[in-house]
Amino acid sequence: MNKFEGEMKYMAQVVEQELSRYLPRKDEFPSKLHEAMHYSTLSGGKRLRPIIVMKAAELFGISYEKVIPTACGIEMIHTYSLIHDDLPVMDNDDFRRGKPTCHKIYGDAVALLAGDALLTHAFATIAKNSKISGINPDAVVDVIEKVSLAAGGYGMIGGQTVDIITSGKDVSRDTLFYISTHKTGCLMSVSFWSGARLAGASKEDLETIKCFGEKLGLIFQIVDDILDIKGSEAVLGKPVGSDMKNKKNTFVNLFGFNKSVEIVNNLSLEAKQLISNYNNNDFFIQLTDFISKRDY
Amino acid sequence: MNKFEGEMKYMAQVVEQELSRYLPRKDEFPSKLHEAMHYSTLSGGKRLRPIIVMKAAELFGISYEKVIPTACGIEMIHTYSLIHDDLPVMDNDDFRRGKPTCHKIYGDAVALLAGDALLTHAFATIAKNSKISGINPDAVVDVIEKVSLAAGGYGMIGGQTVDIITSGKDVSRDTLFYISTHKTGCLMSVSFWSGARLAGASKEDLETIKCFGEKLGLIFQIVDDILDIKGSEAVLGKPVGSDMKNKKNTFVNLFGFNKSVEIVNNLSLEAKQLISNYNNNDFFIQLTDFISKRDY
Repeated sequence: MNKFEGEMKYMAQVVEQELSRYLPRKDEFPSKLHEAMHYSTLSGGKRLRPIIVMKAAELFGISYEKVIPTACGIEMIHTYSLIHDDLPVMDNDDFRRGKPTCHKIYGDAVALLAGDALLTHAFATIAKNSKISGINPDAVVDVIEKVSLAAGGYGMIGGQTVDIITSGKDVSRDTLFYISTHKTGCLMSVSFWSGARLAGASKEDLETIKCFGEKLGLIFQIVDDILDIKGSEAVLGKPVGSDMKNKKNTFVNLFGFNKSVEIVNNLSLEAKQLISNYNNNDFFIQLTDFISKRDY
Repeated sequence: MNKFEGEMKYMAQVVEQELSRYLPRKDEFPSKLHEAMHYSTLSGGKRLRPIIVMKAAELFGISYEKVIPTACGIEMIHTYSLIHDDLPVMDNDDFRRGKPTCHKIYGDAVALLAGDALLTHAFATIAKNSKISGINPDAVVDVIEKVSLAAGGYGMIGGQTVDIITSGKDVSRDTLFYISTHKTGCLMSVSFWSGARLAGASKEDLETIKCFGEKLGLIFQIVDDILDIKGSEAVLGKPVGSDMKNKKNTFVNLFGFNKSVEIVNNLSLEAKQLISNYNNNDFFIQLTDFISKRDY
């Protein structure tokens, strides 16, 4: 394990601990709901988005500990989106991160409600960031607004909607870009933005870090599409070929494998270029490589 | 139409107009999602919760116009909860407010996503309340936290969860109270609290108005149970007896009709007592009667 991998692992542990602190306790009534929230949220995962929030805050000069509530809130939103995405009415997936999906354990109704509860609780959690010394409440309100827009109909849910309603149909490249940039990119990008905003970054820096996040989000989605064809179930944590099964429009289906890899490589160079002038950008350079070169 | 009814009608029109301004436009991509959000949000209704936010702000000395974003955000949360509640996986209702439910028009997947998007967009909308002059950003953060807690697993979703998992089973009176106070009461109560908080009410006043809201929320739920048995479909906007069909535990099932009416009357007296010392409490006294004496 190199330094970057060690840091990712350490930060993921921090996130795991803090998430279990910010979630309602499992034994609180109604415990079935809270158990379902814990089951899906505390099921491992790379914790990319919260780590991004924390490292973006560091890049602009404040301790990662000061943005933990926002980091946890964004991870709750990510988790809810996976729970709802896996429901029979959506992708109907039985496994996620190598474990049965939430509705396979708790039933469809409780899984739906656990997703709703995580999405809702995310905003109370982010709001708690205003209680931390040195964090401006105006910045917290801005983060709540931006996270909400990135996760909603203009962002992640917009992407999910188009993904669902175009399943099994041929789509244009524009539509594929829309799906990929919105389904994954928006929440990843706003993770960078939120950490930077809470740290008091300038408007110009916020714009740069947002663009960097958009590129990383798109890389992540394309690599996901590649892994769905070429990857192993162990790496992916869900059955290989599930996009094929659901007749999803993916980069690999539309551009082919080689062209998809080329797009990833170009985006990776562009992303690194964007942040080349920042001091202490090592983590983000390595993160770009990490996201671009997952096992395929 | 008396003065109170006229004011309710006028305020409902204001809410309707403002909601259509704060929602994403129907023609924005992906339009199917945004149409579904409009369809369910702009389908009439009494607009009780947003009106409560606005009138609570007035009670504590600021213009209702200053809390419109929060009022609209809370109505979006209420609407999402109805969309998800009506889904086949939950209550499986085909009609709501006399119109086909969201999933009957847009399909289950888009209805699920439209609900998610409304819940998400609610928080961006409430966050916009910080841009209004004279409103303290700390108050907006507090409102976001309280609304999130009232709508989440500790509040409304907690109530919905217990309602769903106890359907068709006998429950204790404690459980019935839990369901009724949480499913309806929490969001109604936080509507009072939010208007008052944004208006700068004292801690003591916030506690009083919260208790008042809890009582009105419970009255509302018990009257709903009574209407499900005794009401007409025209008043209810959904088929009479749908709680019976779903074997829901209701006050009428557990206490009988006469005792349920008695509980409503007692709660109504207690509520009026709570706010008897406030100036300009006319609207809230009449609101208590209005909620207590819907047509049954």
